[in-house]
Amino acid sequence: MAKRRKYLLKRPKATKTLNQVPGTMTYVGNKVSTETKLDVIDYNETNYERFSSTTPEDAFKFVDEDRITWFNIDGLNNVEEIEKLGDYYELHPLVMEDIVNTGQRPKIEKYEDYLFIVAQMLYYKNGDLENEHISMVVGKNYLLTFQESNGDVFDAVRERIEFSRGRIRGRSADYLMFALLDAIIDNYFLVIDDVSDRIDALEDSLFTSEPSDHITYDIQELKRNILRIRRAVFPLREVIGRLERMETILIEERTTNYIRDLHDHIVQISENIDIYREMIWGLMDMYISTINNKMNEVMKVLTIMASIFIPLTFIAGIYGMNFEYMPELEWKYSYFVLLGIMFIIFMAMLYYFKRKKWL
Amino acid sequence: MAKRRKYLLKRPKATKTLNQVPGTMTYVGNKVSTETKLDVIDYNETNYERFSSTTPEDAFKFVDEDRITWFNIDGLNNVEEIEKLGDYYELHPLVMEDIVNTGQRPKIEKYEDYLFIVAQMLYYKNGDLENEHISMVVGKNYLLTFQESNGDVFDAVRERIEFSRGRIRGRSADYLMFALLDAIIDNYFLVIDDVSDRIDALEDSLFTSEPSDHITYDIQELKRNILRIRRAVFPLREVIGRLERMETILIEERTTNYIRDLHDHIVQISENIDIYREMIWGLMDMYISTINNKMNEVMKVLTIMASIFIPLTFIAGIYGMNFEYMPELEWKYSYFVLLGIMFIIFMAMLYYFKRKKWL
Amino acid sequence: MAKRRKYLLKRPKATKTLNQVPGTMTYVGNKVSTETKLDVIDYNETNYERFSSTTPEDAFKFVDEDRITWFNIDGLNNVEEIEKLGDYYELHPLVMEDIVNTGQRPKIEKYEDYLFIVAQMLYYKNGDLENEHISMVVGKNYLLTFQESNGDVFDAVRERIEFSRGRIRGRSADYLMFALLDAIIDNYFLVIDDVSDRIDALEDSLFTSEPSDHITYDIQELKRNILRIRRAVFPLREVIGRLERMETILIEERTTNYIRDLHDHIVQISENIDIYREMIWGLMDMYISTINNKMNEVMKVLTIMASIFIPLTFIAGIYGMNFEYMPELEWKYSYFVLLGIMFIIFMAMLYYFKRKKWL
Amino acid sequence: MAKRRKYLLKRPKATKTLNQVPGTMTYVGNKVSTETKLDVIDYNETNYERFSSTTPEDAFKFVDEDRITWFNIDGLNNVEEIEKLGDYYELHPLVMEDIVNTGQRPKIEKYEDYLFIVAQMLYYKNGDLENEHISMVVGKNYLLTFQESNGDVFDAVRERIEFSRGRIRGRSADYLMFALLDAIIDNYFLVIDDVSDRIDALEDSLFTSEPSDHITYDIQELKRNILRIRRAVFPLREVIGRLERMETILIEERTTNYIRDLHDHIVQISENIDIYREMIWGLMDMYISTINNKMNEVMKVLTIMASIFIPLTFIAGIYGMNFEYMPELEWKYSYFVLLGIMFIIFMAMLYYFKRKKWL
Amino acid sequence: MAKRRKYLLKRPKATKTLNQVPGTMTYVGNKVSTETKLDVIDYNETNYERFSSTTPEDAFKFVDEDRITWFNIDGLNNVEEIEKLGDYYELHPLVMEDIVNTGQRPKIEKYEDYLFIVAQMLYYKNGDLENEHISMVVGKNYLLTFQESNGDVFDAVRERIEFSRGRIRGRSADYLMFALLDAIIDNYFLVIDDVSDRIDALEDSLFTSEPSDHITYDIQELKRNILRIRRAVFPLREVIGRLERMETILIEERTTNYIRDLHDHIVQISENIDIYREMIWGLMDMYISTINNKMNEVMKVLTIMASIFIPLTFIAGIYGMNFEYMPELEWKYSYFVLLGIMFIIFMAMLYYFKRKKWL
Repeated sequence: MAKRRKYLLKRPKATKTLNQVPGTMTYVGNKVSTETKLDVIDYNETNYERFSSTTPEDAFKFVDEDRITWFNIDGLNNVEEIEKLGDYYELHPLVMEDIVNTGQRPKIEKYEDYLFIVAQMLYYKNGDLENEHISMVVGKNYLLTFQESNGDVFDAVRERIEFSRGRIRGRSADYLMFALLDAIIDNYFLVIDDVSDRIDALEDSLFTSEPSDHITYDIQELKRNILRIRRAVFPLREVIGRLERMETILIEERTTNYIRDLHDHIVQISENIDIYREMIWGLMDMYISTINNKMNEVMKVLTIMASIFIPLTFIAGIYGMNFEYMPELEWKYSYFVLLGIMFIIFMAMLYYFKRKKWL
Repeated sequence: MAKRRKYLLKRPKATKTLNQVPGTMTYVGNKVSTETKLDVIDYNETNYERFSSTTPEDAFKFVDEDRITWFNIDGLNNVEEIEKLGDYYELHPLVMEDIVNTGQRPKIEKYEDYLFIVAQMLYYKNGDLENEHISMVVGKNYLLTFQESNGDVFDAVRERIEFSRGRIRGRSADYLMFALLDAIIDNYFLVIDDVSDRIDALEDSLFTSEPSDHITYDIQELKRNILRIRRAVFPLREVIGRLERMETILIEERTTNYIRDLHDHIVQISENIDIYREMIWGLMDMYISTINNKMNEVMKVLTIMASIFIPLTFIAGIYGMNFEYMPELEWKYSYFVLLGIMFIIFMAMLYYFKRKKWL
Repeated sequence: MAKRRKYLLKRPKATKTLNQVPGTMTYVGNKVSTETKLDVIDYNETNYERFSSTTPEDAFKFVDEDRITWFNIDGLNNVEEIEKLGDYYELHPLVMEDIVNTGQRPKIEKYEDYLFIVAQMLYYKNGDLENEHISMVVGKNYLLTFQESNGDVFDAVRERIEFSRGRIRGRSADYLMFALLDAIIDNYFLVIDDVSDRIDALEDSLFTSEPSDHITYDIQELKRNILRIRRAVFPLREVIGRLERMETILIEERTTNYIRDLHDHIVQISENIDIYREMIWGLMDMYISTINNKMNEVMKVLTIMASIFIPLTFIAGIYGMNFEYMPELEWKYSYFVLLGIMFIIFMAMLYYFKRKKWL
Repeated sequence: MAKRRKYLLKRPKATKTLNQVPGTMTYVGNKVSTETKLDVIDYNETNYERFSSTTPEDAFKFVDEDRITWFNIDGLNNVEEIEKLGDYYELHPLVMEDIVNTGQRPKIEKYEDYLFIVAQMLYYKNGDLENEHISMVVGKNYLLTFQESNGDVFDAVRERIEFSRGRIRGRSADYLMFALLDAIIDNYFLVIDDVSDRIDALEDSLFTSEPSDHITYDIQELKRNILRIRRAVFPLREVIGRLERMETILIEERTTNYIRDLHDHIVQISENIDIYREMIWGLMDMYISTINNKMNEVMKVLTIMASIFIPLTFIAGIYGMNFEYMPELEWKYSYFVLLGIMFIIFMAMLYYFKRKKWL
Repeated sequence: MAKRRKYLLKRPKATKTLNQVPGTMTYVGNKVSTETKLDVIDYNETNYERFSSTTPEDAFKFVDEDRITWFNIDGLNNVEEIEKLGDYYELHPLVMEDIVNTGQRPKIEKYEDYLFIVAQMLYYKNGDLENEHISMVVGKNYLLTFQESNGDVFDAVRERIEFSRGRIRGRSADYLMFALLDAIIDNYFLVIDDVSDRIDALEDSLFTSEPSDHITYDIQELKRNILRIRRAVFPLREVIGRLERMETILIEERTTNYIRDLHDHIVQISENIDIYREMIWGLMDMYISTINNKMNEVMKVLTIMASIFIPLTFIAGIYGMNFEYMPELEWKYSYFVLLGIMFIIFMAMLYYFKRKKWL
């Protein structure tokens, strides 16, 4: 169980960076890739080029004022390559540190020539919720993205660039930034849809299956997940809000409407999260009430059985006594009369419990 | 049970619009009508005309500066007709997208020539709470409304226009907007009256019927409903608040008082919602306490029966033993004396439980 | 039970006013008086006159710039008389509507020549909490009050005017307004004193009487009441706060201190309400814990009785078996030895339960 | 139990002042002293005089511009003496009313020539939490304090004045005010220390003693106390906060640092109160969980005893039947074999419960 | 148990400082060292000197404008040495008082020539959470730290100074202050990692071990700890926030970025604390649900055993009666038939409970 918790904290165990000189770049995540992969997409309205698995040095040759260049790095433990990029675009040392420090919460920082944005991608992998640190640097005609591992939610954006769908090829780097944030946020919808499904499934199993600690555990797991999702989404909402109001030449007037749209989306997600949170917190009460219900059922069965047969056994016990002088014993019909009386008691008890609605 | 959840999220399953180019119009709701119906009402103080089931092209011929024209579209999956209207009144592409994207939360956006308002209609259909996305565009002398399906809460407004009741025929499009919002909000009162009745019914059944998982389920259902209603009402309250303070030539001075009134109403509804919410959350506790009460009853019956008859059975058991030398067995009155003793024990137990108030 | 709920909503069932033209005067409360009673008190420092059960026309003759005139109307279903008053003092149509619309929450509205205040009177009637809508119009030298039914909390104010006690006869209409609001708020103290007594009584009964659904029901009833009181008081606190800060020639400088005092009082009431609310919410937990305690008691009695006598019965059962060869049966002292052993087991069990503190 | 509640409301039963003319001085507390005691301390850096149990007239003779005069009145039901003081220093009638109206919540009011401060002293008396209304008027070179009864927390301050300890003799009336508030607030620490001890004791008794309604009652009592303390402390925090920011010639520059210190203290107390509140609220849950635990224990004992001996009794019952043809009865070793079988069943059951960890 | 509480209050029992003249220095903590140890580190970019266990007089000789001097004092009960330092740097008397008053909550105060910062170090010692009061005075070229006892979290900073790692030797006292705060905050990560581990362990033990009061106790202990951590962290967050926005020549422009980083960290910690708090509060509910589950299990075993064997015993009891005329007794196969019937009843009951899923 200890395994899951590390994602909650997000900042990996403090011991790794404790007492480290501030501004030092050390990757602290637990998604160690064997290699750091650099992927470059270079485009404008008319041109499009893509270089997969290239080196920074090769890539810099193609950087051109007239074109947007998108550098994407997968894998953060190869600090050198990231430093080359950082040096080329003159990033602040603390930005460099934050890029590899996957413990950061979503934030936006405005520097003179660029914006620095940190966000969290969320996805389910083998049924477990995973979150991945992603940081973005947006400059005048370039955009850098840094991810912890291979695979992301940006393939649709790449296709829109390649096949020139929508407005993306005609806009600047800020629109690309919007498109990527949009992809991240759209993906949150998938994640909370999944949470919603799990709540449904859990509710169903509350009513259909026997109570078991497994359900308690699943509810706690859901709580943990919704809290983690909340931690990724709520600070990002602030980020988008600040982005909307930010005055900078890096963001064009016409992009602002799109960012407002983004803000609408993330507010909507936040509201859903809070609703699901209340639903999940209610699940435990529901569960306790169903256990109590079931216990009540069990008690009724016991009480009915015991209340009917214990008195009858007592009566039988009386006539099992060995006293020498018990007049009833000798009478010929005693036995049958007694069986009759027992039957009447039996029926009376049944009627009593029926009227109490226990049967 | 999974069916109900989709309304909660309101934004339909993300997969439909995921990775879609922003600004694309795709209807994402689940109320697919076979046809999109356009209904046009054109009026001023002296004239009144209505065209049901017409086409945009036909309708535009009658548009006139001196008259208010209200276009109402039922059914959002015929995107073309909506586009014609949008083009005619030069709506922004993102507005067009929001009109058909039923996942929007209530909001207001101010554009140069028009206001764009999104709201949610709520109603009960076959005992289930349904919500329907409605969007409104208010211009100088026109008003567009877009609804997901046939049937709405506006018939009273239509009559007031047709039969020239109240002030509506003498006012401009902003007053019509007010009248429609008023109709939507008035309808919320019906919905929360219904919630109130359901709380009453549930409380009654807590006390009168046996505990069952069905009650737990109903409480959870009520929670879900009140949360959904809250999601529709609270953002709309903000919308009305902004409308009240908004400075625009589209809203006349004399309409402001009416909007303030609207604001009073929606604040009142919000307060009721929060009260009902607390009541509903309290229901689960009430329910658990009634179950516990009932279990206590059951336990008492069991304890009384067992405490009385188990010791008596033991006594009978003693004289059922087969020892050769048991002096009591031979005495003539043993049996009757023992019966007497048993009766005394029985009465003593009854008295004990009576004094404990268990009987 | 459905009866009580209508007060909670305060705005009566929406169906009555649904689809009504805004600005229409329709009384929507459920306190229909057969007649509307107008009572006029006219005074200044030297003069005092009172006309009970008069007509508006008669009353207007006595209106005089030098005197304060207080019109009080009991009963809101006679809309005509109210309209006459409204026309005479040129009230806005929406004010007129709000006077008879008893669903309004407490509010204050500033018009050019007068202030319009809505409040709720609270009182216990036959053990049930009732609230009554009261609205007030304060002008330069007149004050109008509109109440739903006969009987109010203003008799002390009337006496102070009649017998010229305190400062009231030397002040203007704003001081009269203060005096009336003071009477309403003072009355809230009585109501929450009552709530406090009910909490006490309920707590006592938790400990002294057997658990029963009646207690659950009473707790829920108290919750409902405190929520209703809260709904009346909290918006009024805002009203008084705004009154304190309001800049208008209608309120004299020297009255402001008194309004500040009023504000202190209502803040105090609000705090008490929140404390009582927490206490009431705690009651359900207390109740569940006392039920559990009692169930624990019941279980202990059962367990002690069963644990002592079931093993003894088993032993007796052994010697009740009919095997032909059971050596103990023939020994002369077997029976007495066995009785002794049973007694020892009995005492050992008692000692065991004593040590476990179950006895 | 009704007795304790009056302190919670603090404002005594409303009936006493209901319908009273505003500005009337009536003592409404329940600490009626037979006499009102006036104590005057008059000092400056070089002089010190004290007059105990004097009259206002005598005291006024010694009032001197060069000296600080501190009037302290114990007992508020002798309204005349208080009025003399009030008239001498020209206090506002509403201030006079608030001095004797012990229902006031802590507040500060700034008048032209003086500050008026209301606070609550808290102390434990015979194990019950008591609160006492104290009001203070701070002028240029005088300070008035009004208390409900004899005995206060100011003796240390009196000694510091008398024996000229610390800075107090060299400072003006504002420093004396600070010293008195400091004494009141320091005393709160004692009160919450006591609450902390009670929480400890209650927690201990949860684990060590048998569940009983007495614990439920104590928890509820603690809740009530912490809420009452909160009511005294939180408004005073605001008062101190306003005092810190207040611009008045009555408070010297150099005293501000001390008031800031006071603010730190009261913020600290507030935080502790909120923490204790959470702890106390958690106690009820703890209690319910310990009851449930104990009930579980009881159930286990019952289940083990019943599960072992009921089947064994059944077996014995079989061989107690009187059928003429039961082959086992005649075999010589039947009895011993059966005893052996019974012993094996007994051990098997024990092992089963052992493995289930119920033993 | 009373022992732990003193840390919660943090301000030691009020009796120690009650009625003390404000501005008096008295150490009130409970970590009385036998001696106060002064340690001085004096450095600039080129020089480094360290004097352990020196006296203030010796240390002042080395103070030099060109160098940063860091005085660290361990042990606060030797007030004299602290006074010498305070006099040398002309600290305000209230600052002096706060240095030794370990009850202070984290705060920052700006004086003309220096900043005064109070914080709390947190660490686990013998499994118990300890907090230690630390205060800091930051001047132009000096920094004073005052700790309650030996041992701190600053050794890594000392090494960075000694071996000239990172930027620290080239910066002024404000950067040293940042480095120390960074060390304190980094250490919080360790503490909350520990809390996270404890939550994990407790959750595991909920499912694996039998319910016991020990778990209730541990949950309460965790609650207490998280509240104490919260009390140390939340005010410090405010402190760092104010430090970030503070305009003073004592903090260089280039240090601001580092403080912003610090702020990010402490916000992150605060969020984790709130999440852990929710998790811990949820633990009690989980625990109650697992107890209820276990009780349900116990009840089922009892009910099954009793429901099967009580009726069977009754049947055996019937044929143990001694009536002279019971026809079945004489039939040769009665016994075997009855055994058969009993077996069928037994199997039927088993099947019944199986279908109810109790087995």
